[in-house]
Amino acid sequence: MKIYDVAAFPNPARVRIALAEKNATDQVEFIDVDVMGGEHRTPAFLAKNPGAAVPVLELDDGTTISECTAITEYIDHAFEGPSLSGKTAKERAVIHMMQRRAEGNLLDAVAAYFHNATPGLGPDLETYQNREWGEKQKERAVGGMRYFDEVLGKQPYVAGSEFSMADITAFAGLAFADFARIEIPEDCNNLQAWREKVASRPSVAG
Amino acid sequence: MKIYDVAAFPNPARVRIALAEKNATDQVEFIDVDVMGGEHRTPAFLAKNPGAAVPVLELDDGTTISECTAITEYIDHAFEGPSLSGKTAKERAVIHMMQRRAEGNLLDAVAAYFHNATPGLGPDLETYQNREWGEKQKERAVGGMRYFDEVLGKQPYVAGSEFSMADITAFAGLAFADFARIEIPEDCNNLQAWREKVASRPSVAG
Repeated sequence: MKIYDVAAFPNPARVRIALAEKNATDQVEFIDVDVMGGEHRTPAFLAKNPGAAVPVLELDDGTTISECTAITEYIDHAFEGPSLSGKTAKERAVIHMMQRRAEGNLLDAVAAYFHNATPGLGPDLETYQNREWGEKQKERAVGGMRYFDEVLGKQPYVAGSEFSMADITAFAGLAFADFARIEIPEDCNNLQAWREKVASRPSVAG
Repeated sequence: MKIYDVAAFPNPARVRIALAEKNATDQVEFIDVDVMGGEHRTPAFLAKNPGAAVPVLELDDGTTISECTAITEYIDHAFEGPSLSGKTAKERAVIHMMQRRAEGNLLDAVAAYFHNATPGLGPDLETYQNREWGEKQKERAVGGMRYFDEVLGKQPYVAGSEFSMADITAFAGLAFADFARIEIPEDCNNLQAWREKVASRPSVAG
């Protein structure tokens, strides 16, 4: 299988961490996409993902999978190792709920700020911007940090007692926040402690 | 188990259809939330879902699950019947990918238009609006209709040969589009034919 991505970007990082958690990184051929040069908007790439975003997983039968949750579902079910998406109905529900919150209230909110209220990837790629919306999403991201700080005051990981894909998403969201210069509120001690704990995992620290 | 919702709203409809597909509707006690009266923003409701949205599933142990994909994961794994989220790694990946597309490019885009560029739920509830963003999301929703029309020209259901939760989401997205007065482009014949087929399912037709 192949993954089309940009190694340093936040969403590709999610999939790379998931693969490392499964000890499956060496099962994948990584193919660099020249996003800064607009390759993700060429017909060849749009045929793989009409959403024009990395990462994209391509299976050996040619099936292409985009959207990080979907790719992580594939990885989690195709490889042995610790479960990232849960096994019981309740585990799966809680993890998918927290995954959506980590996206909507953190990673995607940071992305919306970055692409709408900052120069983002530059004028050639940022062809539509809505600054007011971007600023609103920055507020949402900071609210997300406060929410996860509260959650992590009650439990060791984002979705409960075990590490899951929701931790990966929230962790990537904070990395993107650093890059976009959205600061974590100083009093979010639980969030900071959890971040250090996740950063020390072999799948992240490398 | 209990579900807190508003029967006529699009996201609650998704969960009700999923339950009906599993013949599990009678396993649930439905509790009406007075969204028009602001009940979803009271401390009692925010304790169930800090995202202040319906539906919320409450399990018998008190665990509360929000986000439709998460609730559907619960329903799909807790009850017998046809699979809504897939069984193999590949099925799960494709269905989750199409689920996100049905949300991001259709249902959520319609919702963003409705809440930002129309009176939405009225001035008491629509405390922040960004009309330009809303109009942009309307364009995105129409683009989503054209995308799904193309998909449904090649396969009978949104995620392939079988009905799945992605069909439920896209179907609810079109119902919301009707309500928000976003018209389906006239030449989207595959989408219209699929919509009639889904509307005739017992889980939808009742």
